[in-house]
Amino acid sequence: MCKQMDKLVIGGIELDSRLFIGTGKFPNKKVIPNVIKSSKAKVITMALRRVDLNSKEENILDYIPKDCILLPNTSGARNAEEAVRIARLAKAMGCGNWIKIEVISDNKYLLPDNFETIKATEILAKEGFIVLPYMSPDLMAAKSLVSAGAAAVMPLGAPIGTNKGLQTRELIRILIDEIDLPIIVDAGIGKPSHAAEAMEIGAAAVLVNTAIATAGDPVKMGKAFSLSVKAGRMAYISKFGPEKNYAQASSPLTGFLNM
Amino acid sequence: MCKQMDKLVIGGIELDSRLFIGTGKFPNKKVIPNVIKSSKAKVITMALRRVDLNSKEENILDYIPKDCILLPNTSGARNAEEAVRIARLAKAMGCGNWIKIEVISDNKYLLPDNFETIKATEILAKEGFIVLPYMSPDLMAAKSLVSAGAAAVMPLGAPIGTNKGLQTRELIRILIDEIDLPIIVDAGIGKPSHAAEAMEIGAAAVLVNTAIATAGDPVKMGKAFSLSVKAGRMAYISKFGPEKNYAQASSPLTGFLNM
Amino acid sequence: MCKQMDKLVIGGIELDSRLFIGTGKFPNKKVIPNVIKSSKAKVITMALRRVDLNSKEENILDYIPKDCILLPNTSGARNAEEAVRIARLAKAMGCGNWIKIEVISDNKYLLPDNFETIKATEILAKEGFIVLPYMSPDLMAAKSLVSAGAAAVMPLGAPIGTNKGLQTRELIRILIDEIDLPIIVDAGIGKPSHAAEAMEIGAAAVLVNTAIATAGDPVKMGKAFSLSVKAGRMAYISKFGPEKNYAQASSPLTGFLNM
Amino acid sequence: MCKQMDKLVIGGIELDSRLFIGTGKFPNKKVIPNVIKSSKAKVITMALRRVDLNSKEENILDYIPKDCILLPNTSGARNAEEAVRIARLAKAMGCGNWIKIEVISDNKYLLPDNFETIKATEILAKEGFIVLPYMSPDLMAAKSLVSAGAAAVMPLGAPIGTNKGLQTRELIRILIDEIDLPIIVDAGIGKPSHAAEAMEIGAAAVLVNTAIATAGDPVKMGKAFSLSVKAGRMAYISKFGPEKNYAQASSPLTGFLNM
Repeated sequence: MCKQMDKLVIGGIELDSRLFIGTGKFPNKKVIPNVIKSSKAKVITMALRRVDLNSKEENILDYIPKDCILLPNTSGARNAEEAVRIARLAKAMGCGNWIKIEVISDNKYLLPDNFETIKATEILAKEGFIVLPYMSPDLMAAKSLVSAGAAAVMPLGAPIGTNKGLQTRELIRILIDEIDLPIIVDAGIGKPSHAAEAMEIGAAAVLVNTAIATAGDPVKMGKAFSLSVKAGRMAYISKFGPEKNYAQASSPLTGFLNM
Repeated sequence: MCKQMDKLVIGGIELDSRLFIGTGKFPNKKVIPNVIKSSKAKVITMALRRVDLNSKEENILDYIPKDCILLPNTSGARNAEEAVRIARLAKAMGCGNWIKIEVISDNKYLLPDNFETIKATEILAKEGFIVLPYMSPDLMAAKSLVSAGAAAVMPLGAPIGTNKGLQTRELIRILIDEIDLPIIVDAGIGKPSHAAEAMEIGAAAVLVNTAIATAGDPVKMGKAFSLSVKAGRMAYISKFGPEKNYAQASSPLTGFLNM
Repeated sequence: MCKQMDKLVIGGIELDSRLFIGTGKFPNKKVIPNVIKSSKAKVITMALRRVDLNSKEENILDYIPKDCILLPNTSGARNAEEAVRIARLAKAMGCGNWIKIEVISDNKYLLPDNFETIKATEILAKEGFIVLPYMSPDLMAAKSLVSAGAAAVMPLGAPIGTNKGLQTRELIRILIDEIDLPIIVDAGIGKPSHAAEAMEIGAAAVLVNTAIATAGDPVKMGKAFSLSVKAGRMAYISKFGPEKNYAQASSPLTGFLNM
Repeated sequence: MCKQMDKLVIGGIELDSRLFIGTGKFPNKKVIPNVIKSSKAKVITMALRRVDLNSKEENILDYIPKDCILLPNTSGARNAEEAVRIARLAKAMGCGNWIKIEVISDNKYLLPDNFETIKATEILAKEGFIVLPYMSPDLMAAKSLVSAGAAAVMPLGAPIGTNKGLQTRELIRILIDEIDLPIIVDAGIGKPSHAAEAMEIGAAAVLVNTAIATAGDPVKMGKAFSLSVKAGRMAYISKFGPEKNYAQASSPLTGFLNM
């Protein structure tokens, strides 16, 4: 396969990197530019609340390089209407027209509301937003997101911040099989091996935040995720040999000394 | 951590790469040099039988760059005595003093004989070999391999050639915790995510053969494994944040629109 | 806990058995009464299509003992409206007022449409049906089912007929934690150990069909599931000791012979 | 299959129950007779140290019904010689000729020493003991135990007392496939679903101690294990339908309302 052919295209934009990162939970915002560099992420998500252009205090945008794509998220929204308002506000504040929809009213597991998310997606896609909805993996909801005009679908691997990995593996695999949009695994990815696994089963990208932000060394962890995402994608393209129940010798077994 | 400090040292030699590869099962030997390049592997294992210096036919050694460390293996040996004879033959043929002990008399699962492996390790270590024994993961056998003079311990993740991944995860984790030698996971690793996982739990290196040799594109798959091994090691050094049962918001949740 | 207190109550009816079974896929309908006996199931689901009171051919109802609760399902329905029509038809045909809602328009994985399922649930609950909706495990959809008047929630463990077990374990665990209705795991359960696991994490019941119907000996397999469901429930009530990372001796370790 | 044909025979004795239990870790020994009753276990293991016929204090044997088979274990033995001494002492003290060999010198994970275990097995089998060796699952060591005269082989699922379940599933499966003796999974089984799984893959029996002894209600938990072991065995005999990647309808899907 020609290298050029493996670009991920979302909203008409070619992305070099299949690792998206978030900006929450870092012990110190100053580390964010270094994480963006080490992780080679080009799409960076942030809660709009942290974007305060009039504040005298530091603004999260100060830490994001100009060549990155901003992916403001609607965290804090409890229904479609609030998500729509936050999205419009983001655009008005100059954050561009990409938006990650998060509609959450469950405070314990932070699980998204698929129904409200579909509604918000429909409204915002019509307004010209590039909509990336965070969702609970469910085939029929994903089909509705396609109809609603989503640019990609972002199913969760496990609840936000748990670092539990691909607990919803089987449902995500079905989305990848059936949905004709990029599937970006968001939430739950706690280790590079989880990210590699998502890519190996055919995810288009992954979004990682907590696992990098709460690592002992976030900059190095950002690089680790970058490498594992590449590895997983490359392996997916290379195609795997079969899994077997019995052993297969790599080396000749018998008769060597008797020759 | 200083980059220099994370070198893997075996038999007094500093290794740049924590991915070891095998040379069996490739559809075409000509691809091997390219796989060695793409995978950046520096330690290459081959069955001694394939090393025939007098043969007019092609020799596996012709495909291995001079700056690699040869790790001839004793595959075909059914007991310690045969393994010892093969090792000595390898040295006499100019393959150096590294030897991977494989003693196998089970033809269905190709599982190693720990007891005979310990015996062969003891004899060969005394003769000055750098001995890397392939073993069934078992703490007490690993302790015996340490006493016998092994340079590293190579537990299997799953039977050879099955691509099933770290089926013996729990036993390997215990070896890593208790054994004061590099633990190199050998056999069973079928995907880059498996290799990353081995490194994340603290393995010193992995050996991969079937997964690369039987991939659709072995050269690209070699590179994928190289990246995932680096990713897993880097993450291990960076230290992971905790796994949690409940969600933790990356982004602020409430009151945003009410401010 | 007093034995009486552990009854499962649905729609005001006390159920002795936490194993529900289905009647599809049996090689021979004549085996069904024996399976009902061996499994001690009291709630039996059947596709309404198989219930044809006017048919000269055999009718599935002929095989279900009178003391069982019939749980006709709406399989074949592609939207809420069709499900509602089938439910009313079932009642009119004398199948009682219990109904399992299945709304499926995905022919490959047979995954349910949560949104249409919620709509049908709301309509039928208002009409006095005891509604048990089959659903893709999703917390917010489950909350909507509660509001819509469902009598229980039936999340899938894996796609129908796959025998893959609790692939959605983490999402089901959250439903059990957060939803104040019986959670009945439906679909995907392939082995008694899967059923036991569902009960151990707190499911109220399980529905099993394919695993029994396609077993070598369906009658014996029915009994096996019956035992494992009881075992899992009993263990859940007994409360588990903790899982540990290091060993804990059951027997005294040292000094025995030196006393 | 005729019910009679499924008896487990060890040392020439037909056993009605495939659940063996241990007597360590109970908060109160008085509960042991009730656990034996509820679990229907017929083979009961105890550390010889607890068997003190001359003691004025209570003796573990006082709590074991006469119709049970005593399986004294050699816990505390650090090598073959100590295990042999304890076994002979057990016989001399009237505990019969069954012996469970435990040779452990690792205090953190309590993992057995396969090599010393084989040695002890050989000596004791020749003396007429019915030897049940506890071992780290390893095919070649299991073959040696067969040659040494073991009556069964007892591989661990996970370290003693961890309740982690069948972490060594793949290796145990291979023992079941290749070894012509009853395979009894010992250690690590923490839940009835784990026990059922062991039986489903073909184990002949399981030994459970910690999971019962540390449960909130040990008597009820004993019964739960009894049921799950029966369930798993029954399912194994009934034979499973296949696992599938795509859904298979249990109920007819289309055209129902259009008929």
